[in-house]
Amino acid sequence: MSSMKDWTTARVSKNVRRQAKRLEMLRAAARLFSDHGFHETSLDKLSDAIGAKKPTLYHYLGNKEQMVFECLKIGIEDVHQAAEHAQCGPGTRAERLCAFLERLAAVCIDDFGRCAIQVDDKVVCEEKRIELRALKDETRTLMLGLIEDGMADGSIARSDPVLLLHALVGALNWPARSSDPTASPGSDNSAAKLVSQLAHGFLPR
Amino acid sequence: MSSMKDWTTARVSKNVRRQAKRLEMLRAAARLFSDHGFHETSLDKLSDAIGAKKPTLYHYLGNKEQMVFECLKIGIEDVHQAAEHAQCGPGTRAERLCAFLERLAAVCIDDFGRCAIQVDDKVVCEEKRIELRALKDETRTLMLGLIEDGMADGSIARSDPVLLLHALVGALNWPARSSDPTASPGSDNSAAKLVSQLAHGFLPR
Repeated sequence: MSSMKDWTTARVSKNVRRQAKRLEMLRAAARLFSDHGFHETSLDKLSDAIGAKKPTLYHYLGNKEQMVFECLKIGIEDVHQAAEHAQCGPGTRAERLCAFLERLAAVCIDDFGRCAIQVDDKVVCEEKRIELRALKDETRTLMLGLIEDGMADGSIARSDPVLLLHALVGALNWPARSSDPTASPGSDNSAAKLVSQLAHGFLPR
Repeated sequence: MSSMKDWTTARVSKNVRRQAKRLEMLRAAARLFSDHGFHETSLDKLSDAIGAKKPTLYHYLGNKEQMVFECLKIGIEDVHQAAEHAQCGPGTRAERLCAFLERLAAVCIDDFGRCAIQVDDKVVCEEKRIELRALKDETRTLMLGLIEDGMADGSIARSDPVLLLHALVGALNWPARSSDPTASPGSDNSAAKLVSQLAHGFLPR
């Protein structure tokens, strides 16, 4: 029994290592796709940046389209997870929205988040694009629900919830899109400051 | 003398017609580049959409890189013009900022504005990219100046001006980037509503 358990543990830990290695490789790919665009990122560049020969790359990650699909999916899943988490957080709906937006700001400057923002999902085939858009739609419904509930309970000012959602997402997406290096929130509390600006507005209170 | 004047008028009007035709062709190109991406927009597609044979296209607009450069430049120039105009507008700095943001919202959903937002300037050569980025930097300096002056005179709430600028630009850019059709401000006063949300914040006052 003990050897059976050892064998299982060894197998699990091999799987974990494999997954960790895969994720690390995907992260390097996501960074290249964001920085140079999908079309400008050749397999040679990927192989150099990841530090693996092309057959190894293919073995772990598949072809270039499969790689970009995985990167986009992880980026969108991170936002989805943050939106799900916000549903049951502590505090008023407005406070949950602020907490979610801070988390979103962090995702937007992470390698996978940047990739999902910068790389157009038109680069993957229709079937995969439908999968990505369904996940985006689900995320959007969660975020919109939080805003609508907040407007209903009075913790968020009444206005057009769809417009507000787009304004907030656009504001937080911006650092990932901008070619201006000062746009990226640094290691200080920029994300919190940004969310506070959006919460309070730019007119004096 | 009269025939000389007629000749000059005819020549000027021919030039005006030529410029108008050129702009109309460029607008169709900008729409294609935004909707399908630079790489996916072939000369065949451009020729079909513009309704002109490839040699005519080349005669008026040059090659594909020259076309996209012109489209990006017009989009950025439109924002630059709006920012310049805002410097000397009526009202407080906060009111000028609101007026500028409403104009920016309109540029962001125009064909050239959408193209400048969606198409990465990495697709043009370095020399042209430097020209585009210089114009962007100048525009950014104008916008930042308006925000800083407003914070100094008290009409805009004191906060981090760079973060605020990025949040505002990002919020207004979003409709052009989103694959969600509800994101685009319709023919109602969405731009004004969006600017008001950003001005007042999402917390109740």
